[in-house]
Amino acid sequence: MIELAEAIIRLEAAVGGLKPVVETIPIGESSGRVLAADAVSRIDIPPFDRVMMDGYAIPPGPQSRVYRVSGFVPAGSQNAPALEPGTAMKVMTGAEAPAGTGRIVMVEHTRERDGWVEILDESPTVHVAPRGEDVGAGEVVLKAGSRIGPTRLAGLTSCGLARVEVFRPPRATFLATGDELVPAGGELAPGLIHDANTPLMANLLRERGYEVATPDSATDDPPELREAVGSALDAGGLTVITGGVSMGDRDIVPGVLKELGLEIIFDRVKVKPGKPATLAAGPRGIVLALPGNPVSAFVGCFLYVLPALSLMEGRRTRPRFIPMPLAAALAGGADQRLRLLPARLDEEGRVDLLDYHNSGHVHALLRAEGLVRVEAGAEPPAAGESVPFWPLRCAAYVGEEEDEF
Amino acid sequence: MIELAEAIIRLEAAVGGLKPVVETIPIGESSGRVLAADAVSRIDIPPFDRVMMDGYAIPPGPQSRVYRVSGFVPAGSQNAPALEPGTAMKVMTGAEAPAGTGRIVMVEHTRERDGWVEILDESPTVHVAPRGEDVGAGEVVLKAGSRIGPTRLAGLTSCGLARVEVFRPPRATFLATGDELVPAGGELAPGLIHDANTPLMANLLRERGYEVATPDSATDDPPELREAVGSALDAGGLTVITGGVSMGDRDIVPGVLKELGLEIIFDRVKVKPGKPATLAAGPRGIVLALPGNPVSAFVGCFLYVLPALSLMEGRRTRPRFIPMPLAAALAGGADQRLRLLPARLDEEGRVDLLDYHNSGHVHALLRAEGLVRVEAGAEPPAAGESVPFWPLRCAAYVGEEEDEF
Repeated sequence: MIELAEAIIRLEAAVGGLKPVVETIPIGESSGRVLAADAVSRIDIPPFDRVMMDGYAIPPGPQSRVYRVSGFVPAGSQNAPALEPGTAMKVMTGAEAPAGTGRIVMVEHTRERDGWVEILDESPTVHVAPRGEDVGAGEVVLKAGSRIGPTRLAGLTSCGLARVEVFRPPRATFLATGDELVPAGGELAPGLIHDANTPLMANLLRERGYEVATPDSATDDPPELREAVGSALDAGGLTVITGGVSMGDRDIVPGVLKELGLEIIFDRVKVKPGKPATLAAGPRGIVLALPGNPVSAFVGCFLYVLPALSLMEGRRTRPRFIPMPLAAALAGGADQRLRLLPARLDEEGRVDLLDYHNSGHVHALLRAEGLVRVEAGAEPPAAGESVPFWPLRCAAYVGEEEDEF
Repeated sequence: MIELAEAIIRLEAAVGGLKPVVETIPIGESSGRVLAADAVSRIDIPPFDRVMMDGYAIPPGPQSRVYRVSGFVPAGSQNAPALEPGTAMKVMTGAEAPAGTGRIVMVEHTRERDGWVEILDESPTVHVAPRGEDVGAGEVVLKAGSRIGPTRLAGLTSCGLARVEVFRPPRATFLATGDELVPAGGELAPGLIHDANTPLMANLLRERGYEVATPDSATDDPPELREAVGSALDAGGLTVITGGVSMGDRDIVPGVLKELGLEIIFDRVKVKPGKPATLAAGPRGIVLALPGNPVSAFVGCFLYVLPALSLMEGRRTRPRFIPMPLAAALAGGADQRLRLLPARLDEEGRVDLLDYHNSGHVHALLRAEGLVRVEAGAEPPAAGESVPFWPLRCAAYVGEEEDEF
């Protein structure tokens, strides 16, 4: 049994050696992708001295009470004439400030009549954003390895980028093993349960932009499983399995992986839940095999599966733990393993551990926003104590109904 | 000019009256959808007394040193025989515990030879999760109005649901107005800028599962814009516009909306950024028009656009503010408007306000994780003070490159 930190080092060594494929794509299609090269602004931003308020541009120096209005510069105007001394020019937000502008007088502080404008304030505010104030041409705005989302896509678009070099996202194959599994919605016979791991894993990966194949694999028969895993390896990318990795006689996954010529890199990690997590690698590919209970699969997805996929697209990730106060003490004693406990944030910004007994998977899965880390051997944290919280999804809105849970 | 709270009330009144379309879909396709009816578990979970450890089931009562092994129950076994007095049965994690089981002895604490098993511990732990311990058949597990994500989908799958009643997500049309706009990657002439709002808004909505049309609309010509908005209204759903809502002569959007027979519900909100936010509604449809700078568009998307789309699928949302300590004081004085300032969380769990001067849009867009609320008229918060933080995206991993920003 190895420590979690050691497992991550071995995962990075096994997967980090693969060379990700680089491709150049139109900027508009890059949301969700990882930059393969630093993104450099092609232009100054703003690209010209930019008017920040609707109003009148007046020359610098001693201010007159009235100016002759010599023209109008709307946003998008491409040939703004220069401002002559003693004259003003009507300008709109977003327009290029005429050459010779001292400041913009807000339209609310002016009165225009018969081609003349009266200035009603003496504000020192210029209301012009100078060219390049935000970003300079040639400036690196986002480093290689950064993932592009909607806001970053908007930022890169503003910087004039037309195409970006990104890594091709790896594909994944997911196999849920076990004779006890019935597909979603199917009728249960005694001793059987529904396969929650396939929709869980497939959707966690798909919402991050990965293509996931989910061939039928609910079996504990070694030849059948060997064929399913072999096909997954042939398809390339990452193979992820749940179930069949404990100590029981039907825990056939490690044997199947060895028969396929893979080396077991680790098969026991000192973490709870998810002790029997297994990594196997070889010339044919890489397999992550996780225990079959859905909370273990959920935790394993964020601990190993997403980082492995990120490494395959050139991005090394580390879990992001944010110190936050605990709402109520964790019951029980110390544990020999590092624990990752499902939790959510309450209205006071405290971390609320979810009821997660023996089999309390469904309630934990319905509500978990993230995980709290409790170190191996550490006394359980008390109420109000700062604990490391790992945010795994964003709940931007309070739904009234959700409050009841 | 109205308060933000009043704007939200008017938005809810205008949009909340629309009747969302309900449809029944297979559970496997429901990730991202909003429940139209309470989700009720069809089964007990676990559906049977479930073995939690690989080992041997032994009868209750006084414990013997050895038991005859009368059988083997793997997971998925559908006809487990009952346990006879004086005998044990080999069982696997996830199997149904044989009738008459007192407890499961972990395999590590046993020694089996010649059909007999020796018990090496006297632990009181039963290692059986009783049927229905987690969820009872008929229990409401998720209320109508809740959005289903990958983990909730897994939870509902475990509850045996085959199909769910959900709301059909509304479609949206996005129009970026302004003669100064050049599409992503295009060459800039003097006075022009790239349209960052189309990729921003389209991707923010698409990653939440909404279909978004983005017809070409970079114009300040009223007849052209009227035609574009008219087509968007005819397409149904929500129409979102950026630009053209300030006080300048080319701010033609309100006029166009009135010409199309819509009533202006509000056109100035006491919030910064985004004062000229406009809501118009009428028999032809609903239009949200936001100011053209990308940070205003970003804030307006979360303040109005996503809540409007949620209302159209039967879900009333409220921004979720979490109290968190501020890393460094906010400079400057009080402001007459409520402020929403781009921010991210630092490693100490403090809120770090992003450099957001006049035109600092790109840097704010590259890094923002959420917004900090500062009330109108309030003194700027000091370092260490608790501020309301609105999380808008989840950064689960620290990327080494990102740290440099």
